[in-house]
Amino acid sequence: MPSPAPLRRPGGRTARIRQQVLDAVLAELGEHGFDGLTMEAVAARAGVHRATVYRRWGDVGGLLADVLVAAGDDDWRPPDTGSLIGDLAALNQEIYDALVAEPSVVAALIAASFRSAQAELAQRRLWEDRYERCEVVVSRAVERGELPPHTDARRLLIAATAPLYHRLVLLHTPPDPDLPGDAARTAVLAASAGAFAVGGT
Amino acid sequence: MPSPAPLRRPGGRTARIRQQVLDAVLAELGEHGFDGLTMEAVAARAGVHRATVYRRWGDVGGLLADVLVAAGDDDWRPPDTGSLIGDLAALNQEIYDALVAEPSVVAALIAASFRSAQAELAQRRLWEDRYERCEVVVSRAVERGELPPHTDARRLLIAATAPLYHRLVLLHTPPDPDLPGDAARTAVLAASAGAFAVGGT
Repeated sequence: MPSPAPLRRPGGRTARIRQQVLDAVLAELGEHGFDGLTMEAVAARAGVHRATVYRRWGDVGGLLADVLVAAGDDDWRPPDTGSLIGDLAALNQEIYDALVAEPSVVAALIAASFRSAQAELAQRRLWEDRYERCEVVVSRAVERGELPPHTDARRLLIAATAPLYHRLVLLHTPPDPDLPGDAARTAVLAASAGAFAVGGT
Repeated sequence: MPSPAPLRRPGGRTARIRQQVLDAVLAELGEHGFDGLTMEAVAARAGVHRATVYRRWGDVGGLLADVLVAAGDDDWRPPDTGSLIGDLAALNQEIYDALVAEPSVVAALIAASFRSAQAELAQRRLWEDRYERCEVVVSRAVERGELPPHTDARRLLIAATAPLYHRLVLLHTPPDPDLPGDAARTAVLAASAGAFAVGGT
């Protein structure tokens, strides 16, 4: 869901430098994690003057925050498969793939958010934006008659996705390919039983 | 659930020093977080020679790992309220209270596990132990006839607790007192619908 892909945006020299620098941050983070991430290595990898990187991003927290801002500046939309279970399973598969990738830039960014207040705020905003974009999954299910009109979309989406983050980011259990589908199905069964009905169960 | 309380164990000088040092780690962590945690401050607060702290725990990661080992060395048992929903809601309330406490030592230890490989391993072992102890909540529900005999206890427990960790530790949404009960009820509704049945839904 948080999918920091390399930026491909039109623009002049400033935009090009930003792209080079943020691509370098992702590459360094993927290879060395937060501990190996330095302004010097990013500047060298990007082929940009160190002074420019310091002036524009300040420190490593500033670089990470800008990576997360850039990651949210895309046209990502949640999967549209025609059913609630299909949409949630496909969404969970995206999250799962991003978290178990080796190296996982997404996992590295989450870990980095525990190291930098600036990155933490940017990560939080990216998640808020992603969950907001996902609410259409619930409204489509309501339109199809799969869910009652007064369904708390955010609670349903959190229930569907939380087990993946909890297991893979916090508990560090080994990747289990059943996880995305299981978590999606659990949320749908709970939803069908009225777990996310607004105004009582 | 991970509840690192001050150690109260009988023992000689070695045990007493360990208790003083780990209490000091918890106090420093609660006050200053990982960034303010130093071997020097812990030694000073504990009233123990710095050399002793370095020799026995090596570094801050070693201190945190030992705090987590000590936290698991207790007789904690999950709540036994007489119903599955009651047990899960009470368990979630314990987790919620620990995570929203100010300062939250539990949240600080989780954050620290992203900084130290040693602390990460110890945190993972503590969680594994806590979830294992919680499985009795599910077996009691099976005995009462609330759940089918072949229920995946771990998946049910993760579903019930994951939304708390996801919201409070990763998403950093504001504390919501409905969260423990809502997440417990969602898991019970999903369980009643067969979401955690082993061998298919």
